[in-house]
Amino acid sequence: MSKVYNFSAGPCILPQEVLKEASEAVSNFDDLNLSLIEISHRSKNFVAVMDETVSLVKELLNVPDNYDVVFLQGGASLGFIITAYNLMRENGSAAYLNTGAWANKAQKEAAHFGNVVEVASSKDKNYSYIPKGYEVPSDADYFHCTSNNTIYGTQIKEFPTVDVPLVCDMSSDIFSKPVDVSQFDLIYAGAQKNMGPAGSTLYIIKKDIYGRNGRSIPSYLNLKIHADKDSMFNTPPVFPVYVSMLTLRWLKANGGVEWIQERNEAKAALLYGEIDRNPLFNGVAAKEDRSNMNATFVLANEAHKETFDQMWNDANISGIKGHRSVGGYRASMYNAMDLEGVQALVNVMKELENRV
Amino acid sequence: MSKVYNFSAGPCILPQEVLKEASEAVSNFDDLNLSLIEISHRSKNFVAVMDETVSLVKELLNVPDNYDVVFLQGGASLGFIITAYNLMRENGSAAYLNTGAWANKAQKEAAHFGNVVEVASSKDKNYSYIPKGYEVPSDADYFHCTSNNTIYGTQIKEFPTVDVPLVCDMSSDIFSKPVDVSQFDLIYAGAQKNMGPAGSTLYIIKKDIYGRNGRSIPSYLNLKIHADKDSMFNTPPVFPVYVSMLTLRWLKANGGVEWIQERNEAKAALLYGEIDRNPLFNGVAAKEDRSNMNATFVLANEAHKETFDQMWNDANISGIKGHRSVGGYRASMYNAMDLEGVQALVNVMKELENRV
Repeated sequence: MSKVYNFSAGPCILPQEVLKEASEAVSNFDDLNLSLIEISHRSKNFVAVMDETVSLVKELLNVPDNYDVVFLQGGASLGFIITAYNLMRENGSAAYLNTGAWANKAQKEAAHFGNVVEVASSKDKNYSYIPKGYEVPSDADYFHCTSNNTIYGTQIKEFPTVDVPLVCDMSSDIFSKPVDVSQFDLIYAGAQKNMGPAGSTLYIIKKDIYGRNGRSIPSYLNLKIHADKDSMFNTPPVFPVYVSMLTLRWLKANGGVEWIQERNEAKAALLYGEIDRNPLFNGVAAKEDRSNMNATFVLANEAHKETFDQMWNDANISGIKGHRSVGGYRASMYNAMDLEGVQALVNVMKELENRV
Repeated sequence: MSKVYNFSAGPCILPQEVLKEASEAVSNFDDLNLSLIEISHRSKNFVAVMDETVSLVKELLNVPDNYDVVFLQGGASLGFIITAYNLMRENGSAAYLNTGAWANKAQKEAAHFGNVVEVASSKDKNYSYIPKGYEVPSDADYFHCTSNNTIYGTQIKEFPTVDVPLVCDMSSDIFSKPVDVSQFDLIYAGAQKNMGPAGSTLYIIKKDIYGRNGRSIPSYLNLKIHADKDSMFNTPPVFPVYVSMLTLRWLKANGGVEWIQERNEAKAALLYGEIDRNPLFNGVAAKEDRSNMNATFVLANEAHKETFDQMWNDANISGIKGHRSVGGYRASMYNAMDLEGVQALVNVMKELENRV
């Protein structure tokens, strides 16, 4: 069967060797003659999986000792609630940067818990850029931002220096490059981009946030409870955590976040280079804010749509249809996508130019 | 390799054909030449999975039209919070039946949202029986019970008739027998016993509960939002839902909940028969409340422990160590366990009697 170039925005491409090993573990895990998904999460075999996954996160992101790493469920959508519940005081306030649909959802959920201040928004230009030069109120309980906006193809290149605790939803670019964890009080990320399959969510928590807002927090939403129980407060999502471990092992074996940053920058340079060079295409996002994960672009002339769509389909390219709120195309180049895959897309773009 | 008899309390045994098909889908799903876990959850292939899973739940449990079926994440632990948030009024109250550790956790979480009344408890005898003849306050917003208590090996054989909405955590015996859904306003169940792997949680919701308590509920915790979005409000746990679909297909192909009830009763009769017959063993739970899912038993004489433990280990029996709060042994006989597996355990129990 021919290789499919999977540019899906998430759930998305994972390394082939990870998929192979995950498939085998569903049949027979650790030579137990049992499937990974039918053993107790408290068995020594699965406890070892959870421990290694947490260790790999700490090692790859150089997480300082005063941080906990836990895996929960519910995606970033539950993360929005957990963030506010754990960090906003009763009658407190929080500052949010509105860079897209997900950033917007985050602040809407926080409004259930207190006063939300939108410090800046790029909604005026359909979120095609990252606002800068905004002020964060010094009495905010925290400042929340979204590092990468999959739908619009924008990415925060430098996190702001703020006087309040910094919280970031890194769902769509975590592990794509080094990050200075010590800048943040809380990082959370759904696994289903660079880390693993849908169904587990990573939290990196500065320990001194525990109990800070004085709220009585229901257990599943209380980060301290999960940290105290080493992500085993209740049954964890066994398979998603296991595949995350495999993916992080793959990342480490290949050279870690420094290696992947270089590869991701090379892929982005290749694709954005073609978008800028080829008169048939226009980029959507402001150049300085272009995402290395998701490149959004449109045809200069919609008349070429049918031809182009047929061509990339024929080239076994999958998942590049743009989100309905932006239109055009979106090529997601997550960690597991190699340069060859991006080259395959660029070849089709060049071929279109030759053909029309 | 020899077959392992997996009596694990959960995550637990799943049908062999389900594990085989799940393993294949992680390599190549629907002949897409892509893994199940790297395609978009909004692709037609995965939408078909979610639709079929929901349809199978409705068909197998004969769910009336005025109920919604949704799949979320977070297990029963998040279900405890979701239940109270969606059903308890501000300053309202709810009635709970305390039949064990999980029932107890459920009521503790509800206390974050209002007044909790414990109508009865079997804590006095380490939860070895199901209380009966209790009164449920008629002004309670709902009455909550736990259908099966894995740790103690007890099970509610007949649900009480109450004048308030009935809510049940059916995590450990759903799909093990027919259930009259129309009795309940809300049923929830973590998948990781009879339904699939850890990481997805089923909710069966009477539609008229939506908005009933007048609370403003954060989105991920709001059942109506998930129902309106057909369990796709955010990225669902793709793999756990898929494996649940396979397991429910298996159940349907074999004859549904009537068939499995008969098989589960035969397994329970075989094991409890031996526990009662064999002078070396004593059952833990009150006979009338014995669970068909989890049989708890102890050695009459602890001196035989080493011998017995060696014998069942040699017989490839796995996962029968009792929970620390009960001790002894716990044999979980979930749907995928066949009579042969229970017979293997019974044979070892008989063999012990012959040997000592």
